[in-house]
Amino acid sequence: MYTLIVYDVEEKKVAKVNKFLKTYLNWVQNSVFEGELTDAQLNRIISWIKAHLDLEIDSVMIYTARSEKWLSKKIIGVEKNSTNNIL
Amino acid sequence: MYTLIVYDVEEKKVAKVNKFLKTYLNWVQNSVFEGELTDAQLNRIISWIKAHLDLEIDSVMIYTARSEKWLSKKIIGVEKNSTNNIL
Repeated sequence: MYTLIVYDVEEKKVAKVNKFLKTYLNWVQNSVFEGELTDAQLNRIISWIKAHLDLEIDSVMIYTARSEKWLSKKIIGVEKNSTNNIL
Repeated sequence: MYTLIVYDVEEKKVAKVNKFLKTYLNWVQNSVFEGELTDAQLNRIISWIKAHLDLEIDSVMIYTARSEKWLSKKIIGVEKNSTNNIL
């Protein structure tokens, strides 16, 4: 499914979270990743987040759409990073 | 349509952008807003962004889904702010 992940975590964890999410998704903006995931991949990401972040302090929002056709995307200003799966 | 806006702008503009977006959408996380908008409202937001931000430096990503039913949302960790239109 098409997935968008937006996180807000303590500064010291940002590099670790980015490095992990880059193995599954495309980085599109400061603290935002997107791309196509299988259910198994999404479950792996959720498990990693629960294991490595402080759920009392950090926050991760995961939006999923069954198909990327159901989402449209517009960028105004700088495109921080283009994805292979541009919407 | 259901709209998600994620911005990455110069620090000095953050308060102004938040204040503006709050008049149309729910704030859900650091630099993320979401909610239902009409086409006219979305066009007004896009015009404001183009007029008030520096398109060479700042970046705003706007994701839209024709219906909020097409998007599902999961929050792991802290829910920074709940919306009235929780997905």
